[in-house]
Amino acid sequence: MAIMRLGRVQIRVPNWEKSIFYYKNVLGLIETARDENHVYLKAWDEYDHHSVILQKADTAGLDHLAFKCEFAQDLDLYEQKLSDYGIVVQRVPKGTRIAEGEAIRFQLPTEHWVELYHEIEVVGNGMPLVNPDPWPDHLVGIAPPRLDHLLVTGDDIEGVSRLFMDVFDFKMSEQLVDHSGEGQLATWLFKTNTAHDIAFVKGPNGRLHHIAFWLDEWVELRKAADIMAKNDVTIDIGPTRHGITRGTTIYFFDPSGNRNEVFCGGYITYPDSPTITWTEDTIGKAIFFFERELNDRFMNVNS
Amino acid sequence: MAIMRLGRVQIRVPNWEKSIFYYKNVLGLIETARDENHVYLKAWDEYDHHSVILQKADTAGLDHLAFKCEFAQDLDLYEQKLSDYGIVVQRVPKGTRIAEGEAIRFQLPTEHWVELYHEIEVVGNGMPLVNPDPWPDHLVGIAPPRLDHLLVTGDDIEGVSRLFMDVFDFKMSEQLVDHSGEGQLATWLFKTNTAHDIAFVKGPNGRLHHIAFWLDEWVELRKAADIMAKNDVTIDIGPTRHGITRGTTIYFFDPSGNRNEVFCGGYITYPDSPTITWTEDTIGKAIFFFERELNDRFMNVNS
Amino acid sequence: MAIMRLGRVQIRVPNWEKSIFYYKNVLGLIETARDENHVYLKAWDEYDHHSVILQKADTAGLDHLAFKCEFAQDLDLYEQKLSDYGIVVQRVPKGTRIAEGEAIRFQLPTEHWVELYHEIEVVGNGMPLVNPDPWPDHLVGIAPPRLDHLLVTGDDIEGVSRLFMDVFDFKMSEQLVDHSGEGQLATWLFKTNTAHDIAFVKGPNGRLHHIAFWLDEWVELRKAADIMAKNDVTIDIGPTRHGITRGTTIYFFDPSGNRNEVFCGGYITYPDSPTITWTEDTIGKAIFFFERELNDRFMNVNS
Amino acid sequence: MAIMRLGRVQIRVPNWEKSIFYYKNVLGLIETARDENHVYLKAWDEYDHHSVILQKADTAGLDHLAFKCEFAQDLDLYEQKLSDYGIVVQRVPKGTRIAEGEAIRFQLPTEHWVELYHEIEVVGNGMPLVNPDPWPDHLVGIAPPRLDHLLVTGDDIEGVSRLFMDVFDFKMSEQLVDHSGEGQLATWLFKTNTAHDIAFVKGPNGRLHHIAFWLDEWVELRKAADIMAKNDVTIDIGPTRHGITRGTTIYFFDPSGNRNEVFCGGYITYPDSPTITWTEDTIGKAIFFFERELNDRFMNVNS
Repeated sequence: MAIMRLGRVQIRVPNWEKSIFYYKNVLGLIETARDENHVYLKAWDEYDHHSVILQKADTAGLDHLAFKCEFAQDLDLYEQKLSDYGIVVQRVPKGTRIAEGEAIRFQLPTEHWVELYHEIEVVGNGMPLVNPDPWPDHLVGIAPPRLDHLLVTGDDIEGVSRLFMDVFDFKMSEQLVDHSGEGQLATWLFKTNTAHDIAFVKGPNGRLHHIAFWLDEWVELRKAADIMAKNDVTIDIGPTRHGITRGTTIYFFDPSGNRNEVFCGGYITYPDSPTITWTEDTIGKAIFFFERELNDRFMNVNS
Repeated sequence: MAIMRLGRVQIRVPNWEKSIFYYKNVLGLIETARDENHVYLKAWDEYDHHSVILQKADTAGLDHLAFKCEFAQDLDLYEQKLSDYGIVVQRVPKGTRIAEGEAIRFQLPTEHWVELYHEIEVVGNGMPLVNPDPWPDHLVGIAPPRLDHLLVTGDDIEGVSRLFMDVFDFKMSEQLVDHSGEGQLATWLFKTNTAHDIAFVKGPNGRLHHIAFWLDEWVELRKAADIMAKNDVTIDIGPTRHGITRGTTIYFFDPSGNRNEVFCGGYITYPDSPTITWTEDTIGKAIFFFERELNDRFMNVNS
Repeated sequence: MAIMRLGRVQIRVPNWEKSIFYYKNVLGLIETARDENHVYLKAWDEYDHHSVILQKADTAGLDHLAFKCEFAQDLDLYEQKLSDYGIVVQRVPKGTRIAEGEAIRFQLPTEHWVELYHEIEVVGNGMPLVNPDPWPDHLVGIAPPRLDHLLVTGDDIEGVSRLFMDVFDFKMSEQLVDHSGEGQLATWLFKTNTAHDIAFVKGPNGRLHHIAFWLDEWVELRKAADIMAKNDVTIDIGPTRHGITRGTTIYFFDPSGNRNEVFCGGYITYPDSPTITWTEDTIGKAIFFFERELNDRFMNVNS
Repeated sequence: MAIMRLGRVQIRVPNWEKSIFYYKNVLGLIETARDENHVYLKAWDEYDHHSVILQKADTAGLDHLAFKCEFAQDLDLYEQKLSDYGIVVQRVPKGTRIAEGEAIRFQLPTEHWVELYHEIEVVGNGMPLVNPDPWPDHLVGIAPPRLDHLLVTGDDIEGVSRLFMDVFDFKMSEQLVDHSGEGQLATWLFKTNTAHDIAFVKGPNGRLHHIAFWLDEWVELRKAADIMAKNDVTIDIGPTRHGITRGTTIYFFDPSGNRNEVFCGGYITYPDSPTITWTEDTIGKAIFFFERELNDRFMNVNS
């Protein structure tokens, strides 16, 4: 029984045409399917049919996030564990989304909707499984190889973190604690060997802080920033480094106002990795190691 | 029940003093303990007491390799699974090695000795767990952050690979198959989300092809090669890229003749990652993507 | 007759002890001499005795800048050309500065003092001239290989630029023009094959905007920013890119309030390179290509 | 009077169609003109009409190399200096090559033909001269920004080097001397602030060792090697570093057998830079710093 990774995010994009153009041509995801109100996208080095679904909507934000499980029966097992934990679980029937099977669905204490699924069509990464080159030709825009993590805001950071650790066996790589030293302002949790698969920060329930795409090296952040500037994409901050995770980063906004991140680096984690703690008085360095102070947007702008 | 990572390798080094100097000052590992016939070393970003043990010996080679398990009881569980698989398991009592608890020990079909352990002293990565900087001062030499993987040679590649997949739940990221398309010349296996934690290649039983240390970026390979050249370390090949894993690499030799690697990059894996197959006619590109031909040493020199 | 390069800058540093520590241990210049009120420093890959002189002073700022000429007789020739141009030239006798010969001295229309010199003691770059390694051991801090350029402020940008072009045969790589399209807000001038050796921006006469040190690659900007953050150096902006020169950059402040830059990249120039023009409405992108807007400090803070 | 740069090379390519495809699509130069027996190419960041001319021919090799002078009258001045030096100078009339004016032409002691020219059509670098982006879209292949230098072979290394220094005011950045310490096996000469604009190595007269194109960063060498491997280009050696110039490099062959190089890095030079000497016993490290030994091809294969 195991969650394998953050499998997909569904994002609400009121600025519909411009957002589609942006996600395909500037961020450089690949369209794999479309219906009237949704565009299905994948990053180039992902094998599954999609990892990002754009949803036509009146307001920006996160419709839901979803983890892919290793086995079909994981859905039953997690359903039981969630029910035991006091959480109501719904079934999402096969066919609800293009190229996907059944899912289970529940709401976090932070009011975000989460799905777990196993079945999804495999479309490949654009290269053969026999004697492949290291990268395909014809990539467009920033072209991150994969979805990496997301950060959402909510009130009960401790509760939602405990749920992920107790029910899904996530570990905590880092936490930001308040001046009392007891309250968690933010937590970074991992299930894979990366520094974080999901993170939570104090703020309004149900809101999205950012979704992050992976880049392999610091030099690709420069190229990404060039592409953003050439396309008049608004950069929130970066290229810079996070004290937390050590990762290097650019925050920027899609045309609908959802914050995106390209994230690079960070240490490897294992189940026995210690939790690193940041204290509120060093919050600037924790979030933006070079600037050593938060910009207002980090705490106040979400979607 | 889970292996977390390749935890340590014990390497035989006949050229004792020069090898100690090399591992500490050129490769840049940190000495944490020593007895008459062993020097215990760790890479800087590892938290455990050691990951490499140098052993005074008459011949070069690999004494044994060891995986760290998440839970103490994993030793019992794996002992049972191994016995069921027909493999004889020994107990290595606590105190056999400095700073470690009990281990179990068994031999692979390729005659390599493997240990599993859980208990080891934690010494940290040289930085505080509260408000740490991204890297410590005073690193020396190449200074890889961690041990990454190893490649060993043996006759029964298929057998040893099946054992890792059946007993330890490893997955196969890549394989090199012979002209018949049936026989495996080499396999690359992963338990973490990296492209490989251990690999096997056709060759004499019980021999070491190389142990590999992680570097974060391509630019660090240049610095590593500079340091090798400045210290008259013999480079086998590189900086170059592997077709297999896409990783970038330098192979080089310690003063005792054990091949080392600094390895960087490669894709992320998940349990559902497909297995990539390389055919014998493209073996050059598979191993050394830029040179597109094997050097003789790759197939013939091991320790 | 030829200016070879920006040879030295003499900087006023009221915060004396902390500034010496900073230039030696954080920026990583090498001290070569000292008298009561001056510390002489060089970057590691420079051969001459010094390129930066720190001067004990009550206020921050630039005492003077100096160009090194190829031939001893260049001083006479430039003295004549300057006099013909209506500029008063003084002689600075040998012995005025440690390890230097005679210089000539004059004041720009922007009230900055400039010297030209030829004779200076050669101390080497820390490596032999026979069979050298590509870089020396024991570098400290950011360790730029050399001084690169400086930017000063003044009122008569067109006048000072014309002087450099007419008397010293500098060429203009880029200019920033005001809304009228006629007035120059800033100019970037080169004598070597780099994108600029000196630049001028509209502002108070006699003030220093920044002195810039060279770094070879974008990845070194990340390391530099790490070192700044680890040492609580105030970063003005960056790592980012300039639209002008295409160079990548960090601006930051020494403990006395003088702005420093580490600068990397930019195109090569030749005498026939065209002048690139930026219009005032794109001033943000011109100066900070990623942010696409000036921070207030860029136009208002100087020393 | 001044040579500004290596302006063009004319290369003989017997494998005509494949070579054109290679220079345009793999190396990534841009075609600007063509006649029956010539294809004119430029690198993307060059402003002049062309820097490489492919010439249909029966054998590979260098037809001639040419330097661009700053002023039209430089042709007369250099003609006089060459004649005084005992070298016969020819006039190449305007119209001999597409988009070029008159040139002068002479033969080196090493039997290579050299031209000097001033007039050539300017076509720009694909970006506007007002408010340009840092790089254009739609680059193809390796896409070096410019031609950098070339290395040719000949018998009288000392004579040809002296000619460049005496007549054209080149300086010597590095030399490789034989076991006697007196004879020059190779010399590296510069006129710009780069580590070399032309180099000479002992060998048969009139032959080309390689022409080199500039890349800005080490990471682009990896991408270049990937593109070579994907296109089955034969890599001679690299990515590696030269001890000489410190530059990083890949040597590879065009489909006609002419050696190309992508070259990156190396120090900046000035007229007062010292000459670095390499001794024959360290020739391996001098040429290939990582491998520390020459491959046979370096000394024996030329075109």
